[in-house]
Amino acid sequence: MTSNFSLDPRVDRERFLQMAEEVAALAADWFDGEPDSPVLARLDGPTLRKRIERDLPRDAGQWDEILDDVRQDIMPGLRRNGNPGFLAYVSASAEPVAALADLLVSALNQNVTAWRSAPAAVEVERQVIGWLGEAIGYTGAAGILVSGGSAANLQGLCLAVARTDAAREQLVVYVSEQTHFSIAKSARVLGIGHVRCLETDSDLRLRGRSVAEAIAADRAAGLVPCCIAASVGTTNSGAIDALDELCEVAASNGVWLHIDGAYGAPALMLERYRSLRSFVARADSISIDPHKWCYAPLDVGCLLTRHAELQLEAFSADADYVRVEQTESIEAFSFFDRGLELSRRFRALKLWMMLRYIGFDRIGERIEEEILLRERFDAAVQSHGELELLASGLSVSCFRYRAGEGEDSDDLNREILESVLESGRFLLSPTRVRGMFALRICVVNFRTDEDRLDELVSSVGVSGVRLRG
Amino acid sequence: MTSNFSLDPRVDRERFLQMAEEVAALAADWFDGEPDSPVLARLDGPTLRKRIERDLPRDAGQWDEILDDVRQDIMPGLRRNGNPGFLAYVSASAEPVAALADLLVSALNQNVTAWRSAPAAVEVERQVIGWLGEAIGYTGAAGILVSGGSAANLQGLCLAVARTDAAREQLVVYVSEQTHFSIAKSARVLGIGHVRCLETDSDLRLRGRSVAEAIAADRAAGLVPCCIAASVGTTNSGAIDALDELCEVAASNGVWLHIDGAYGAPALMLERYRSLRSFVARADSISIDPHKWCYAPLDVGCLLTRHAELQLEAFSADADYVRVEQTESIEAFSFFDRGLELSRRFRALKLWMMLRYIGFDRIGERIEEEILLRERFDAAVQSHGELELLASGLSVSCFRYRAGEGEDSDDLNREILESVLESGRFLLSPTRVRGMFALRICVVNFRTDEDRLDELVSSVGVSGVRLRG
Repeated sequence: MTSNFSLDPRVDRERFLQMAEEVAALAADWFDGEPDSPVLARLDGPTLRKRIERDLPRDAGQWDEILDDVRQDIMPGLRRNGNPGFLAYVSASAEPVAALADLLVSALNQNVTAWRSAPAAVEVERQVIGWLGEAIGYTGAAGILVSGGSAANLQGLCLAVARTDAAREQLVVYVSEQTHFSIAKSARVLGIGHVRCLETDSDLRLRGRSVAEAIAADRAAGLVPCCIAASVGTTNSGAIDALDELCEVAASNGVWLHIDGAYGAPALMLERYRSLRSFVARADSISIDPHKWCYAPLDVGCLLTRHAELQLEAFSADADYVRVEQTESIEAFSFFDRGLELSRRFRALKLWMMLRYIGFDRIGERIEEEILLRERFDAAVQSHGELELLASGLSVSCFRYRAGEGEDSDDLNREILESVLESGRFLLSPTRVRGMFALRICVVNFRTDEDRLDELVSSVGVSGVRLRG
Repeated sequence: MTSNFSLDPRVDRERFLQMAEEVAALAADWFDGEPDSPVLARLDGPTLRKRIERDLPRDAGQWDEILDDVRQDIMPGLRRNGNPGFLAYVSASAEPVAALADLLVSALNQNVTAWRSAPAAVEVERQVIGWLGEAIGYTGAAGILVSGGSAANLQGLCLAVARTDAAREQLVVYVSEQTHFSIAKSARVLGIGHVRCLETDSDLRLRGRSVAEAIAADRAAGLVPCCIAASVGTTNSGAIDALDELCEVAASNGVWLHIDGAYGAPALMLERYRSLRSFVARADSISIDPHKWCYAPLDVGCLLTRHAELQLEAFSADADYVRVEQTESIEAFSFFDRGLELSRRFRALKLWMMLRYIGFDRIGERIEEEILLRERFDAAVQSHGELELLASGLSVSCFRYRAGEGEDSDDLNREILESVLESGRFLLSPTRVRGMFALRICVVNFRTDEDRLDELVSSVGVSGVRLRG
């Protein structure tokens, strides 16, 4: 029997393999170009839009033309997260082997709704979830792969909400002023009445006492404390909240403890953070993003929880056309009853292939290297007479150039940033630390090294001298 | 300057290209295997789990071994959505060219948070959103690509909620008993107080009058009507709700009209549905899933809306570490202020490449073919003495074998389904129509054809005769 290989009659097996070769070469060119290309070309909006805008394509197009357009019109307008000078936000350099796996994911095109629809895909996902939990000391948990930290944090909050019968308006979520904004955004989306944004200590960590006091005050006011969101690695400064204290406060108040480890949780693999694992294990839910510090390409986040039954409480839904008829416990399992998505990409396969090929040890080793790079960077900043370290943790460091008497430090550092970015050798994203404008690096990039970070210190120093005239 | 190609020192450009060739060949084998493989192997849970379970991989693994495991342990346990006999749920056969694009998406690994972080990727996404809107007659709208219909429907409801100041508990959403369950699930997640599940007419369509009456009753009871969810193509029977009437009711009551076109909206490209476009254009928001009837691999859904300002109202969030400093209007644009995700995969590129290569005309042509296949199937069912057509629309058809006097129709048809699936030649998902157990086909599969559908009619007929002895 004949069958169409593609929706397009021009594509048969041979043509497909040839196109694959061309796409792989284009990808390889991109990776090869990392070290010497600008991190992010400086284009203006109207010019770029004009270059990309095209009429709705009614007719079939030419493959070569499309690839040329990708190469000439799109690629030069993209940011290189794998460039050694990319140190902004928390966006990882992507592992090429995992990118190959994503081709297979799309070819197999499993819809990982439930075991009955994608048996092996569900098993692979459960396996990968198990590995992630084991790697960070949150073992035996239920979990689900999602699109990233925002989705994981949202779904973590959904579980916390599902545990209470109180009206949404009465609920209170506790965060610090350093907590990722996706928690407060999720709370708003869910109609949660109150988000207490608490002060941190001098190390920018949320402490138990301030949460305990806020909970007591809210209880007294007739509100319902619902969830404490602790961070393992804040985006801003890599701070790890006081997990020991927060576990205690959560337990003694019967409040859900969610850990946002979207960025930092993979560091729990390391010996140096081993002591935190007993507290992490007590969390009710935890977010971890393999597309951040496990170097997987977007998108793959994960929510782990000790409360499988609440996943069902929060998300279970039924309809005639999706009913699961299986009764054997493995076969009756459905992910769509445990999260927000019904149709779900086979995200697990890329992790499964990548983690087996690279191995967790190599990933942990590189995380350790990146923390050491940050520590070395801190030391360079501290020993540089004109620079000041403002905060640091995990692989994040916030610093600034010291302004002179009467100079505006924020303005000066904004200008320095602008000047450092101008070269295309670096991309940093600025932030604020205790109200001060700060330069910030975040190393989640297996292509950067000591040399590039030394160059950054020197580049900031030189810019400062030049700008101050 | 040297740079690491991969996190793994074994992988350089040459090795990467070789691995890519192997992955592409594996993908091609999968596509080649579509016509003659079973749609879904019948495996039992414990056996499959045992086959897939492995210890956490600490050490680096061997590529050949991993590919062998994918081929031998995983692939045989996957469902073939591109098999000509796959007619279940609404899961598309994936276009191979788009799968190739997904390799590039992961290699480039853009994080499409905002223009300032991924300029060309944002422009490509806006372009693709514009094309989708234009193709279905919802032009000039704002939009965002999401993981699928559930996310699009959830975010559509978020917009409706953002327009009101009323407490969540007071809000009411109107659906029919045929509306996709993701609407009611989203309402529950958002803490919306009431979902009115209304009866449909004899064609399983939601009509204006029942909604108008429910709104009046809710208003009288002091509740706040918030959103009408209309379907363009219900999952169950492909029904299109009475858009003209629902537009009228929504407008005269000042209630948000959301259209769930996750499955059916691409059919609005066709001449035969052109008259619906003026009503679609009046909707406040609409979901459309390119990973369904545009044959893109998972995941890519889309929410379109006429209310760009409410996207910001619902989703805008700020933090020091993500602040957009740009002021020029194109450059200041951010998607994370317009949806739930912060980190976002460059989903648009796979659509951009695929739509330009295949062309919208070819996609529309195939959608038309699949509707014709369904109509032809309906005729075959109706002319078959033992079969009964229960409902149909777009490319969905629900039918059953006629039970004799005193026979239990549901039991008989459940047994027939079981027997038809046994061969591995077909996968149908059952449903219920007006309380009756029904066999159901949904054709979103460019590899199926008249022959396979004729075979299905005959196979159901033969099974019925055999089972009734």
